[in-house]
Amino acid sequence: MKSKNKKYDISFRIWFYLGEDKFLGKGRIELLERIKRTGSITNAAKEMKMSYRQAWQMVQEMNERAKSPLVEKRLGGKTGGGAIVTDAGVKAIATFHKLENKVKSYVKKEFKKINI
Amino acid sequence: MKSKNKKYDISFRIWFYLGEDKFLGKGRIELLERIKRTGSITNAAKEMKMSYRQAWQMVQEMNERAKSPLVEKRLGGKTGGGAIVTDAGVKAIATFHKLENKVKSYVKKEFKKINI
Repeated sequence: MKSKNKKYDISFRIWFYLGEDKFLGKGRIELLERIKRTGSITNAAKEMKMSYRQAWQMVQEMNERAKSPLVEKRLGGKTGGGAIVTDAGVKAIATFHKLENKVKSYVKKEFKKINI
Repeated sequence: MKSKNKKYDISFRIWFYLGEDKFLGKGRIELLERIKRTGSITNAAKEMKMSYRQAWQMVQEMNERAKSPLVEKRLGGKTGGGAIVTDAGVKAIATFHKLENKVKSYVKKEFKKINI
């Protein structure tokens, strides 16, 4: 006979969209944070085990979809130079986490009320 | 100059876990609903463009992780026979959607308050 003392939990994810196109999600926010910390798309990509090409494509998509760019390249050599997260980028990171935290509280609270 | 009249939206997903193991998500709920409607794991799998093997594995995982089985096989031939969604399965579907709808309302409401 199976135990009925099973401990369930809930998880969630949120994404911001621009029309049908993904704008920001957990992964992209993490990329922004790592660019901010390392000052480099190359290093941020390495940390996330992504290719530079993948990371740069994500950055380009975010920049195109944002009202103003979230990441700006600094002048640099052929290896890509540095990159900074703009004020708009810093704000996007904060806004995403703030909403994520609110949703987390709500989801946990509502989950407690149900019996699965 | 880029237009600043961009229309953003939010999307989300929720999952129920048993410890570290995924118990239910949107895809599994859809599988349950299709089994319920068609009375067959084979047909439900086909509708979702999954192999029978994949669908059956998902059903087995759900059944193991639930307090009581969500799907029961009916006696049938070598082709798999039929399957029914149990009362516990019907309840799981309803519980998932109810919470999903609550979270949807909350997420949309909170998203309206932010400016990205």
